[in-house]
Amino acid sequence: MRFPKVAVVGVGLIGGSFALALKAAGACSHVLGIGRGAANLELARARGIVDAIGTDAADADLILVATPVAQYARVLAAIAPRLKPSAIVTDAGSTKRDVVAAARAALGAKIAQFVPAHPIAGAEKSGAAAADAALFRGKRVVLAPLAENSAADVQAVEEAWRACGARVGRMSPEEHDAVFAAVSHLPHLLAYALVHEVAARGNSAQLFGYAAGGFRDFTRIASSHPEMWRDICTANRDRLLVELDRYVAKLRALRPLVESGDGAALERLFAEARAARERWLSGEYE
Amino acid sequence: MRFPKVAVVGVGLIGGSFALALKAAGACSHVLGIGRGAANLELARARGIVDAIGTDAADADLILVATPVAQYARVLAAIAPRLKPSAIVTDAGSTKRDVVAAARAALGAKIAQFVPAHPIAGAEKSGAAAADAALFRGKRVVLAPLAENSAADVQAVEEAWRACGARVGRMSPEEHDAVFAAVSHLPHLLAYALVHEVAARGNSAQLFGYAAGGFRDFTRIASSHPEMWRDICTANRDRLLVELDRYVAKLRALRPLVESGDGAALERLFAEARAARERWLSGEYE
Repeated sequence: MRFPKVAVVGVGLIGGSFALALKAAGACSHVLGIGRGAANLELARARGIVDAIGTDAADADLILVATPVAQYARVLAAIAPRLKPSAIVTDAGSTKRDVVAAARAALGAKIAQFVPAHPIAGAEKSGAAAADAALFRGKRVVLAPLAENSAADVQAVEEAWRACGARVGRMSPEEHDAVFAAVSHLPHLLAYALVHEVAARGNSAQLFGYAAGGFRDFTRIASSHPEMWRDICTANRDRLLVELDRYVAKLRALRPLVESGDGAALERLFAEARAARERWLSGEYE
Repeated sequence: MRFPKVAVVGVGLIGGSFALALKAAGACSHVLGIGRGAANLELARARGIVDAIGTDAADADLILVATPVAQYARVLAAIAPRLKPSAIVTDAGSTKRDVVAAARAALGAKIAQFVPAHPIAGAEKSGAAAADAALFRGKRVVLAPLAENSAADVQAVEEAWRACGARVGRMSPEEHDAVFAAVSHLPHLLAYALVHEVAARGNSAQLFGYAAGGFRDFTRIASSHPEMWRDICTANRDRLLVELDRYVAKLRALRPLVESGDGAALERLFAEARAARERWLSGEYE
């Protein structure tokens, strides 16, 4: 048994799925659930995601912090004083530089015990009700280890995610935040913005009435958890702004092609984008 | 038998699915396929989508033009001279003002026989290989009738689409182009732009490597047919520019919220967008 006692702080889609997957893999025997929402924790216990509900992770061998990132300072400060020397703390936050800063501030001399991580398996569903032992199967997890981490601890966190069926890669926190600003944070902002814009129109009922599958998929991520995305967009705002500005510049560069009816240039751009997406879907970048 | 002989010009996803659906409903007995691609037409015949391949729609009771809209002038000019007085011509173009203008120019005194229409059932797949008798089931079709159309002809086109399982609504060509610029044409342009931007980066392999489900759904429509979307974006460019400018203005208005880390305002916007999308998904605008 790799991690006899696991504590999950924030038993939502990610934390709950991690607990279920570790249990299914036989990698842990007891999960303690910690969180703000009593009803959600009760549901997690009823579903067998957690075995107990509590507030103190002092007994845990592995602690996963899976709350919105703005809560990390408070959560890690609560964990720090009673953290046993052999325990490993990891997380599932969608941003990493702010998480590392919060962990350094809260854990102080125990910072070596914190191994930052980010499973790439979001969904627009949230809460323990959405937890699924198969959520991470075949998905990527980014570890963003610190200079202070022991190789053994980083390896242990990697093993936990592998037990969940994930493929594990490594990046620095800086690289992580730049990459995900481009391929995750910006698209979320863009989708929220489009839905908000359409909803604000006087004829929004007609617009939604004729919106079809393309609009549905394009805006799926606009059904994501507002608090979580508030925290991501504020925590990673410098990188998100870089991406937002680049994207607006791209749209500005595209505008004259539309205005002048430059069909050849538009078709070339569309064909290049489609070809790039097809290469991606074919697994060229796996 | 409502339409004994049907001709489909452009036997792709839309034209092919229309033929299959009409046949499945027993609404037509013979389909003539007309188009540029010999291999595609042969596949359509092999799949039983069309019964014959030809160039002359003179015998048809109902003619569906389902090519990219830039080809309409040529296609309708070829149809016009031998169009029999009882025949109805309709189309499946994603834009309507340019289609009406092309039809008026090509059909002249026979313009009353042309009933503009737009089935809202695109997909990123294309060609006869993707045709599906169930494609239009439960989907919307917009009719944009002309003042010259007889009530009986408009009714006949409506019946054809109902036979395919679609729900039929009516709008003016102007209203149609404004609505679809907002909920379809702009999202396509935005998705193409994002994929093109990511693909152009020096670290595009890394970016695609970590792009996940959110990116995949957001950009699904960037796998759409480049020629078709070239024609839509040029045909409807004035309305598309209005939507593009509004969207860029929306992003500009959003920027200071990100820059200043205004979490409360971001969360409110995200929550409002999510709520609007959930109302839409719940069928409030059906």
